[in-house]
Amino acid sequence: MSSFLARLEAHGATVTEALDRLLPPVEGPRGQVIEAMRYSALSGGKRLRPFLVLETAALFGLPEAESLPAAVAVEMIHCYSLIHDDLPAMDDSDLRRGRPTLHQAFDEATAILAGDGLLTEAFAVVAGLEGHRDPAIRAELAAALAAAAGAAGMVGGQMIDISPARGGLDLEGITQLQRLKTGALINFSCEAGAILARAGVAEREALRAYAQAIGLAFQIADDLLDALSSPEELGKPTGQDAAMEKATFVGQLGIEGARARADALVVEAAASLDIFGKKAKSLRETARFIVERRS
Amino acid sequence: MSSFLARLEAHGATVTEALDRLLPPVEGPRGQVIEAMRYSALSGGKRLRPFLVLETAALFGLPEAESLPAAVAVEMIHCYSLIHDDLPAMDDSDLRRGRPTLHQAFDEATAILAGDGLLTEAFAVVAGLEGHRDPAIRAELAAALAAAAGAAGMVGGQMIDISPARGGLDLEGITQLQRLKTGALINFSCEAGAILARAGVAEREALRAYAQAIGLAFQIADDLLDALSSPEELGKPTGQDAAMEKATFVGQLGIEGARARADALVVEAAASLDIFGKKAKSLRETARFIVERRS
Repeated sequence: MSSFLARLEAHGATVTEALDRLLPPVEGPRGQVIEAMRYSALSGGKRLRPFLVLETAALFGLPEAESLPAAVAVEMIHCYSLIHDDLPAMDDSDLRRGRPTLHQAFDEATAILAGDGLLTEAFAVVAGLEGHRDPAIRAELAAALAAAAGAAGMVGGQMIDISPARGGLDLEGITQLQRLKTGALINFSCEAGAILARAGVAEREALRAYAQAIGLAFQIADDLLDALSSPEELGKPTGQDAAMEKATFVGQLGIEGARARADALVVEAAASLDIFGKKAKSLRETARFIVERRS
Repeated sequence: MSSFLARLEAHGATVTEALDRLLPPVEGPRGQVIEAMRYSALSGGKRLRPFLVLETAALFGLPEAESLPAAVAVEMIHCYSLIHDDLPAMDDSDLRRGRPTLHQAFDEATAILAGDGLLTEAFAVVAGLEGHRDPAIRAELAAALAAAAGAAGMVGGQMIDISPARGGLDLEGITQLQRLKTGALINFSCEAGAILARAGVAEREALRAYAQAIGLAFQIADDLLDALSSPEELGKPTGQDAAMEKATFVGQLGIEGARARADALVVEAAASLDIFGKKAKSLRETARFIVERRS
């Protein structure tokens, strides 16, 4: 295993441990929503967004303990978004991370509540006293997370994704959709390190450019995986985009065109980190990983 | 109209204006989720929770402008909870505030997203720069709101409310359910004024006792209204508790017993504000209003 993959796995294990600790099981009828939140949050996944938080913070020399709350919070938001997106009224998916989706494993009401619970808990984690010793940073993290996750970000993107207009989007339209639906949270993940470090304007700009490039590359890679993988490889249904006649980067650019665009974005992402020099090695590897991953 | 009702109406209008300003309509396919959030947030209602925020803040001499963000945030959370509670997978309600529920007026997916959007936006409002000039207060408001709304509060209460155990709860069980499902957010509404004012321990304790008494009184009054009102009077379905064989305060205490308990709680609530003297007149009137309201 490369040192990059070892690092990804180590950070992932730390995040999983923290989620386990922050969502302790409870007795009684209320226990079911906690159990459902745990089912989702402890179900594996690449933990890519928390990895970005931890790595951008490490870029400024911050220890893992300091950036862990923001990392955990962004993963909670990600998990909630998967739960709600999978619901019958939304994408109606049965399989996620190789297991039944939450509303299949429990029921629809519990899935809605577990999503609500994880979304809410994310703010408790960053804004609470354990979030950071400096209240200004706690407040800034909470505000940035809300902006990324809300109707001007991820929720707005999901609205577009399920709208009647979705099928006929052109390249500009699906790029805008990606910016909101998946890009906003990836942006936050990279911005969090800068917030925690009280980074200057140039460094924030560099991380923003990096986040935009890898966010777009991530979506193109997702479209390629959906078009070319089996459900067994991916742990979720595939071929969905074609079946639902959704406009995708693969549809717009072709397989080879999409691959070339993703590769160009990896180069762009790496270049945007020039001001950090060698310290950004792991983030450059992340960009490469994002387009080369198999699930 | 009494001066209390005039005050309730004036604060309500201020909150509605602020919600209107904070949720501006947008063009394009993303616009639908904003439209749905507005449908819910601008649909009237008593605005009781924001009123409590504004009045507890006023107790410490704080101007309305300073407590308005927390007031708006708690109303956003309340609106989101109504949207999600009304969903087909939850209470499956068609009528709310005298109008079709959100999933009836739009569709289920949009209703889920609009709830998610309002929940998220509440944190943007309190944690953002407009929330308060002091970042420590912004962070504390966000953390307290998350604690009240999450799985240890409102979400946990809703989980109990839809659980198989719900039907057979005894008086202690339905009191615990009420503390979480409706009490936690009412507690936050009264705590917010204390947070904003950096109130001392004795004042916080007094407000906590007040909040617990009116929260319980509110639920008993709700059970009485559900048992005794028509849907036309209430703007939502009635007789639901009996139809669903839910244990209620009316079922446990009888009509007269429930009325007597609610009245005793109004006296208790008023007494808990003794340390504030005459300044707490409006909050004492609020307790009375809560049990005497007709909807």
